[in-house]
Amino acid sequence: MNTIQKLTELFTRFPGIGPRQAGRFVYFLLSSSHSYRSELIRLIGSLKDETKICTLCSRFHSNHADTCSLCVDKNRDSSLLMLVEKDVDLDNIERAKGYSGYYFVVGGTVPILDKNPEESIRVKELEKAVTGRIQEGLKEIILAFSINPEGENTTQFIHRVLEPLIFEHDIKVSTLGRGLSTGSELEYSDSETIKNALKNRV
Amino acid sequence: MNTIQKLTELFTRFPGIGPRQAGRFVYFLLSSSHSYRSELIRLIGSLKDETKICTLCSRFHSNHADTCSLCVDKNRDSSLLMLVEKDVDLDNIERAKGYSGYYFVVGGTVPILDKNPEESIRVKELEKAVTGRIQEGLKEIILAFSINPEGENTTQFIHRVLEPLIFEHDIKVSTLGRGLSTGSELEYSDSETIKNALKNRV
Amino acid sequence: MNTIQKLTELFTRFPGIGPRQAGRFVYFLLSSSHSYRSELIRLIGSLKDETKICTLCSRFHSNHADTCSLCVDKNRDSSLLMLVEKDVDLDNIERAKGYSGYYFVVGGTVPILDKNPEESIRVKELEKAVTGRIQEGLKEIILAFSINPEGENTTQFIHRVLEPLIFEHDIKVSTLGRGLSTGSELEYSDSETIKNALKNRV
Amino acid sequence: MNTIQKLTELFTRFPGIGPRQAGRFVYFLLSSSHSYRSELIRLIGSLKDETKICTLCSRFHSNHADTCSLCVDKNRDSSLLMLVEKDVDLDNIERAKGYSGYYFVVGGTVPILDKNPEESIRVKELEKAVTGRIQEGLKEIILAFSINPEGENTTQFIHRVLEPLIFEHDIKVSTLGRGLSTGSELEYSDSETIKNALKNRV
Repeated sequence: MNTIQKLTELFTRFPGIGPRQAGRFVYFLLSSSHSYRSELIRLIGSLKDETKICTLCSRFHSNHADTCSLCVDKNRDSSLLMLVEKDVDLDNIERAKGYSGYYFVVGGTVPILDKNPEESIRVKELEKAVTGRIQEGLKEIILAFSINPEGENTTQFIHRVLEPLIFEHDIKVSTLGRGLSTGSELEYSDSETIKNALKNRV
Repeated sequence: MNTIQKLTELFTRFPGIGPRQAGRFVYFLLSSSHSYRSELIRLIGSLKDETKICTLCSRFHSNHADTCSLCVDKNRDSSLLMLVEKDVDLDNIERAKGYSGYYFVVGGTVPILDKNPEESIRVKELEKAVTGRIQEGLKEIILAFSINPEGENTTQFIHRVLEPLIFEHDIKVSTLGRGLSTGSELEYSDSETIKNALKNRV
Repeated sequence: MNTIQKLTELFTRFPGIGPRQAGRFVYFLLSSSHSYRSELIRLIGSLKDETKICTLCSRFHSNHADTCSLCVDKNRDSSLLMLVEKDVDLDNIERAKGYSGYYFVVGGTVPILDKNPEESIRVKELEKAVTGRIQEGLKEIILAFSINPEGENTTQFIHRVLEPLIFEHDIKVSTLGRGLSTGSELEYSDSETIKNALKNRV
Repeated sequence: MNTIQKLTELFTRFPGIGPRQAGRFVYFLLSSSHSYRSELIRLIGSLKDETKICTLCSRFHSNHADTCSLCVDKNRDSSLLMLVEKDVDLDNIERAKGYSGYYFVVGGTVPILDKNPEESIRVKELEKAVTGRIQEGLKEIILAFSINPEGENTTQFIHRVLEPLIFEHDIKVSTLGRGLSTGSELEYSDSETIKNALKNRV
């Protein structure tokens, strides 16, 4: 295998990339500028060194400190902690600009009938994070997982894990509201969504 | 044009049907049983005679009476009235089995910048229906329109139309809850939906 | 079940129509004109009486005669006979305006490993049609079936059935040319199509 | 912008990659092994140095020589030269394993109404390549461009460019065969494709 073929093969391991698109990436790099390729190499090379997992929320960050910029932002609402599956979920919620509390990235979901759910997500780090946030006035934990069986299983598992802490410190646990999303038409909405939209009418 | 071509042409006027599918309908009828075609003819022929617009909710129905079976069902919750755009919306909400109040079909939506909105929907019939339901203990009107600009414009217009009645009789007006619908993933949800899901968290 | 529900149920048997679209058909008919519904009923009612299966090509037609207008058109090329699966295939080929010979509709395809292929298609009528066309100067039979395993199986079965006639009268048998179709891009074409496009280059 | 954000931004310039997928690439790299990232960096770094444009066919290659392995393969059929738009087209045709001649990559297509078509594709290199191949027994040039208006315009332009050479040396010029591609159904095929399938029947 020559360089083109080897690099194509490496790109096929990128998430969602098949051999054809991987090939196109290589031809794109061949026609790109020297400075673009240098910068790409430099950033991939330093990515791991300049990125840490935040000791508070477990997300990846590129701060010099051990904690990410979000976790040390004192202007955020310390009464709220939102649990999400992965970094891109957190990024998307921040983009929506509607939430001002803190986060914790659990790092996965708990598959249904999973025998060792504590290995699928960061249980220890979660308990530590919640304990820490309680000291700073935590009042509500928002479980923000996807609306599908695995997401709901994750919600239930975490609820059980946090039960003692929640009970002892009288913390409210909530889940994201369900109902009609942007663009929904009544004619095509599923029964579950219609029921939730009715229950949560405002 | 022969019979096949003429019938194909008539089927192309059915909603969402192009010439190819219309042709397939004709070939389907040619290979269907005599009794199926007879029944189809009989029902199309009697459809209009046996169908009326309910004098209470404005939906199509096939009762002998002037009112539909839903409107005369005394077991339903007379404190609730839901306004929907069209019959199929009502059918879908009934299928979801989560609502037990009464309905009114406004018969359309109000386009943005529409100069004569009172011609787009059944304003008079609506006022009459609401007045009637007030006599029977109406407490809340649910505006159940699609989550798009035209649906929201319809909500606003109807709110203005009903304002005097609502004010006088202290009726609550609500809209369907917004949030994550079945199958939603946080990574791909739009900002508006995320904000609503947060606001309506439970 | 009332008239609306019964008619909805009948429409769900139309090819490709689910309960939602069937419901929309009924509401469409309710808001259509009286004359449209009358014409629809009249045409469905007379469809079978005014339609026959052509004794020459086996397609449905609405002529007073026993044969369809295509089969009696003396301006067509009597040296060519194209075999197709179904009426809509014939209609689409006529729409393309590139063929001037005669047709025969075999009425189906032969599934792979089918034990009684002679029951899947009109074998007797086919042999009779070919024999008749031979008398009028037939020189080539075009097997025009879909490019998939079942279509190719049908091609092979019919080839075997017609072998004696073909051999005795020195008839050529051809299949539709394979290669790049409109809109094809080399980057995305499958291997089989590329090989055929190369073999059939012009 | 931190390292994660900068790298995400660089990946959005990859062909077909939006900000969300670019973000996922970064998180994928963060969770990948050190050796994977090192190899990726090494290959991107050496890609340009180890890749040349073949002096015979203009494709990218990673040989030590000036010419690619295909162009120096004496077992290929020197009577055939296929002209393609880009490297990935050549890769896909090789994958189909149906062609044994040589190639030339013209490097683009000629837009309709383009005033300087000689700037859109490698005209000089093409003439040189054809002249060279003539010396080695070239008999046919296959123009293998996409089946769309721009592809056909490219075919016509190149035909004009090569006319003198073709005429002088009596070279045949062909295009890829058109017809039904794998999976085609007669019912849904466009008129142009049906006409070609008829013309090229075998």
